Amino acid sequence: MNKKLRVGILGATGMVGQQYITLLNNHPWFEVTHVVASQASALKTYAQAVEGRWHMQQNIPDSVARLTVRTVQDIATSAESCDFVFSALDTPVAKEWEEQYAAAGIPVVSNASTHRHTPDVPMIIPEVNPEHLKMIPIQQKNRGWLKGFIVVKPNCSIQSYTAPLAAIHKTHKIQKVFVTTMQSISGAGHPGVASYDILDNVVPYIGGEESKSELEPRKIFGSLGEHAFVYDESFTISAHCNRVPTIDGHMACVSFECEKKPTKEEILSAWESFTGEPQHLQLPLAPEKPIHYRSEENRPQTRLDRDTDKAMAVTVGRLREDPLFHWKFVGLSHNTIRGAAGGGILIAELLYAKKYL
Amino acid sequence: MNKKLRVGILGATGMVGQQYITLLNNHPWFEVTHVVASQASALKTYAQAVEGRWHMQQNIPDSVARLTVRTVQDIATSAESCDFVFSALDTPVAKEWEEQYAAAGIPVVSNASTHRHTPDVPMIIPEVNPEHLKMIPIQQKNRGWLKGFIVVKPNCSIQSYTAPLAAIHKTHKIQKVFVTTMQSISGAGHPGVASYDILDNVVPYIGGEESKSELEPRKIFGSLGEHAFVYDESFTISAHCNRVPTIDGHMACVSFECEKKPTKEEILSAWESFTGEPQHLQLPLAPEKPIHYRSEENRPQTRLDRDTDKAMAVTVGRLREDPLFHWKFVGLSHNTIRGAAGGGILIAELLYAKKYL
Amino acid sequence: MNKKLRVGILGATGMVGQQYITLLNNHPWFEVTHVVASQASALKTYAQAVEGRWHMQQNIPDSVARLTVRTVQDIATSAESCDFVFSALDTPVAKEWEEQYAAAGIPVVSNASTHRHTPDVPMIIPEVNPEHLKMIPIQQKNRGWLKGFIVVKPNCSIQSYTAPLAAIHKTHKIQKVFVTTMQSISGAGHPGVASYDILDNVVPYIGGEESKSELEPRKIFGSLGEHAFVYDESFTISAHCNRVPTIDGHMACVSFECEKKPTKEEILSAWESFTGEPQHLQLPLAPEKPIHYRSEENRPQTRLDRDTDKAMAVTVGRLREDPLFHWKFVGLSHNTIRGAAGGGILIAELLYAKKYL
Amino acid sequence: MNKKLRVGILGATGMVGQQYITLLNNHPWFEVTHVVASQASALKTYAQAVEGRWHMQQNIPDSVARLTVRTVQDIATSAESCDFVFSALDTPVAKEWEEQYAAAGIPVVSNASTHRHTPDVPMIIPEVNPEHLKMIPIQQKNRGWLKGFIVVKPNCSIQSYTAPLAAIHKTHKIQKVFVTTMQSISGAGHPGVASYDILDNVVPYIGGEESKSELEPRKIFGSLGEHAFVYDESFTISAHCNRVPTIDGHMACVSFECEKKPTKEEILSAWESFTGEPQHLQLPLAPEKPIHYRSEENRPQTRLDRDTDKAMAVTVGRLREDPLFHWKFVGLSHNTIRGAAGGGILIAELLYAKKYL
Repeated sequence: MNKKLRVGILGATGMVGQQYITLLNNHPWFEVTHVVASQASALKTYAQAVEGRWHMQQNIPDSVARLTVRTVQDIATSAESCDFVFSALDTPVAKEWEEQYAAAGIPVVSNASTHRHTPDVPMIIPEVNPEHLKMIPIQQKNRGWLKGFIVVKPNCSIQSYTAPLAAIHKTHKIQKVFVTTMQSISGAGHPGVASYDILDNVVPYIGGEESKSELEPRKIFGSLGEHAFVYDESFTISAHCNRVPTIDGHMACVSFECEKKPTKEEILSAWESFTGEPQHLQLPLAPEKPIHYRSEENRPQTRLDRDTDKAMAVTVGRLREDPLFHWKFVGLSHNTIRGAAGGGILIAELLYAKKYL
Repeated sequence: MNKKLRVGILGATGMVGQQYITLLNNHPWFEVTHVVASQASALKTYAQAVEGRWHMQQNIPDSVARLTVRTVQDIATSAESCDFVFSALDTPVAKEWEEQYAAAGIPVVSNASTHRHTPDVPMIIPEVNPEHLKMIPIQQKNRGWLKGFIVVKPNCSIQSYTAPLAAIHKTHKIQKVFVTTMQSISGAGHPGVASYDILDNVVPYIGGEESKSELEPRKIFGSLGEHAFVYDESFTISAHCNRVPTIDGHMACVSFECEKKPTKEEILSAWESFTGEPQHLQLPLAPEKPIHYRSEENRPQTRLDRDTDKAMAVTVGRLREDPLFHWKFVGLSHNTIRGAAGGGILIAELLYAKKYL
Repeated sequence: MNKKLRVGILGATGMVGQQYITLLNNHPWFEVTHVVASQASALKTYAQAVEGRWHMQQNIPDSVARLTVRTVQDIATSAESCDFVFSALDTPVAKEWEEQYAAAGIPVVSNASTHRHTPDVPMIIPEVNPEHLKMIPIQQKNRGWLKGFIVVKPNCSIQSYTAPLAAIHKTHKIQKVFVTTMQSISGAGHPGVASYDILDNVVPYIGGEESKSELEPRKIFGSLGEHAFVYDESFTISAHCNRVPTIDGHMACVSFECEKKPTKEEILSAWESFTGEPQHLQLPLAPEKPIHYRSEENRPQTRLDRDTDKAMAVTVGRLREDPLFHWKFVGLSHNTIRGAAGGGILIAELLYAKKYL
Repeated sequence: MNKKLRVGILGATGMVGQQYITLLNNHPWFEVTHVVASQASALKTYAQAVEGRWHMQQNIPDSVARLTVRTVQDIATSAESCDFVFSALDTPVAKEWEEQYAAAGIPVVSNASTHRHTPDVPMIIPEVNPEHLKMIPIQQKNRGWLKGFIVVKPNCSIQSYTAPLAAIHKTHKIQKVFVTTMQSISGAGHPGVASYDILDNVVPYIGGEESKSELEPRKIFGSLGEHAFVYDESFTISAHCNRVPTIDGHMACVSFECEKKPTKEEILSAWESFTGEPQHLQLPLAPEKPIHYRSEENRPQTRLDRDTDKAMAVTVGRLREDPLFHWKFVGLSHNTIRGAAGGGILIAELLYAKKYL
């Protein structure tokens, strides 16, 4: 491990790109060596390209500030400059270019929604379905790719409840879930939500978010078929997704029913003991505990709990009986860290530790 | 109708009391002639009593500003000064004093939660269960009261979904309801929620609110027994109640299942045509339409829709199929007007039009 | 006055245009008959053109919803369809088109900053400098315009302190003013300020705002020369302009020094008695009193006081001695009503009452 | 330095007390061994005493959670348990008890305003007036105290501009300062500002804050007389203090005039090179640079810059010429860290390094 892997960021000037660059600063295994953005930024230094629109609290790391911004079309330079890329491309262009990068031998870890339901592309929460990475050689074979591949991160809205449900699903077979999310404005990027639309307001609609919230967990809880993932259709989720005036942190109110009702102790114990590959492998950005339960009656709270355990953990609370289903609880996770760049980095760390990178 | 009824406000210096006084300014039927508050305010003018803590945008009406504040113990003066009272007393003292006022011959319309489940006390949403007022003579007989009685208003959290569900329940028998509320800070009164606890935050807990939200609609949808109300146990509600950083307006995300699934058109038509006694009787504070449906994909919104139809209507939107239950939608109502003082005044207007006052 | 003047709105689909349309609904003298927007909206109905981006609480007035949107180039249609126009054009295009409209015989009342310092264009606060309208015939002569002319409204940031200072300037000659503004996000239009940039934040910079705040009062307090306005250079303003997370309402903290120090009573009396043409002429949108003084130690407040007197008044408070200058106070006005569309309408009402329209 | 000093916190359960406990966790020199609160908390463990009202993001440090809470009257126990105390007592009780503690031989570093203008009590910003600590032996002699003494921290509102002005005052003699503050809600403690009073609002009044802001710098810039501090009356400050809806961070808009106008370069250089005892002595909580200048036109911003350099630095920006005075700029500091507990700890570190503790 004497040399760091060289990392490229596709969509490096947007909010998620900036978050990647910030979180990768001083990363023990990875080093940002390549930044890709739109034509308007091409050949500027990264510092010039983001002048007046750098939105992170920390300054731009010096080593990234002086990188020359390339366009996504310039794959040749990417292939020379980096060992893999994080894609924060906008959905409309992500499909074409992520495939071209993979075809050119560059592994892609993507935040875009384009490939989330592509049958041979793993959608990974490292603590929940690391075994889905076994699809990578199949994907490469399907497509004739030698070294490149695509792995994706699920939507930020599901991070607050998927791990807590996964911890229970294994033993008690979850069947029905109602979830209402209260999502922060950073989830929409920048400029994202106009302040006039959200100050002193709740917007009970986020385009496409409810169907993502209902569908993505079925793939994540699914299994590997011969050529494609088999979705877990044993449970159904109904989602209401709302935008609320908070900066960071997505909260979810969840009611669920299982095949057999677990006891409160069984659930708390499942959460307490929940752990996964990132913890066993001691991945650098892994939270110590993926799930933190708080026993106070009014927690988790968005501002107080979003940063728990490097902002990489889910905080849950208020576990109580539900008059219609078995149990209800509240979950919270940080949407731009665990739910975006941090989640992507954890996938890359897992890929590296598992020798896919 | 040449003379206005004289009205007393119990708990006149608090937020709900101030809202009553503001909404009753220039009321065609009622006139505030009597204000009751704690010992600390006694014998001050009302203007002096609320100095530095008047929270309404409008100024104190002159006629109220100069009233002398009395204590709740001084029932004799109340009995002389007013024909009925609105009670915005704190729950701990409300039980004793509301009963004493009723016993002294003074009808009480109450915002307190104390008597909401008292078997012979009507809990009224005027468009939904006006026939529950028929319990009043029974209540008076039960207790030996000649002229006084107690009628209560339900909790503000249920206003955003109870009327929309009532419109459907009549014909399609609602059986199961999931509701997640996002409630404004004015619901907690003043000082209420500390700003440090709610700026850039969501608090997924409001003491007692979930059980109220689950239980109160069963009484409202219930029927009159011989001596007491019979609750409607044909449906079950599961509620998640949250405090969000908005000033006014409670939003509810609702999923529901009926005995027989209604069509979308049936629901929209039920909402469109929903009307009740307040509309037929043309009560002064009645909304023209109790339910407004908005067809835009991102409405209702808290700030944009809370003031609809004198802030007395429920605005609904986003009616769509639910993967688990039959349908889901979003409802919104103004918590301090429809959900508090305005709702109380509408009850009093109904009582007056029906000759109970 | 049996027929209403027909009004066109240039830039009708933006926030200020929407505000004009909302405020002109049921106006006793004016009727919106013509709406102009960019090519993208051309030939749509107004309702279609603003679908998904109508930001007012009130619905689009029916009579405007069905108007066909025209482009600014189609002056011929404008000339037929309206007696004068309000311009809410963006600054870059305002200069050319406002002049073309005036040249075509259509009077223009403008919100744009383009012509604020054009020497023969009056910049009007109706209570402060109505006599500046006398420049109109000179302007027409200067330019060879027969019927058309241009009159402009000053920047929203100066409304909170210009009238209060004008009331004192007449008698005591203001010489130095420090002003720090705290301006609401609606001042930036829609989408305007990104929520990520302003939630839990203050941005101490608004492009161009400080120089406008320092310079515009000099023209407004100035006098008519033979061909051009003579600025009042007897006083100097230093402005700090900040964006704060409030929806509507611009607050200003002001310290000022006069040639001769007025007494507190003189100032309060000047404010109390301050009145102008809009009040004498009983213009429909004129506030009853242009300046409201509040004696509480913590007023004015943005949310509580912005709607005072139809949101057309300035609310002042906290008049106290200043350790460096003579006095300091706090002023507040509603930026999208008094400071934008409402201010423009009041100018048009004045023009109409004075027979310029 | 093998043993840590034992520290007591007076007023340990309030917001400032909690901030002290959080910031002192793992401090290299100090260890919280003693917690003092009101009678209501007495003899509870600290964890019990703050149950339901612990407002920090980090959990209560274990070592403090199990301490037994004492009352302020129990000085004997304090004298045994700690080497010095931080006082976060409420102003009304602070005077009596801080003096009693000092008399009992326990040095007091205080956040309370009580003793800020006591003639022989140093009010310290460690980078600005560390030499004021020389008053300590005089104070002890004045009062017959052997080992105890009182040192105070100035008000949080002045931290954003006092150091930047101090850097200029030395060489160019500041004479006049206008300052308008925009202060966060955490400055009022908890519950502090009611959310209903500040959401979508600005409150242009904070009791007592303007006189503190105008007067305290005169003592800090003052000199030691024989028995008492001599205030620096060579300059005058006029302050407007406002509460705005931000969580943490106090911003100040500042205009100033000097005896001789400095150049822009002189000011920037004075800020860039500004440093003091905390930096020379490498105190644990000292910022690397006390003043950070940002050259972007829209910085500092409250949320983005408050945490700069351990939240212990002042961030300044927007230095530009002032039409009335010489220059204007914007300053920002973190009010509960630099402006409260962090500022207190830095004083204690200075006292320790200088052998006063």
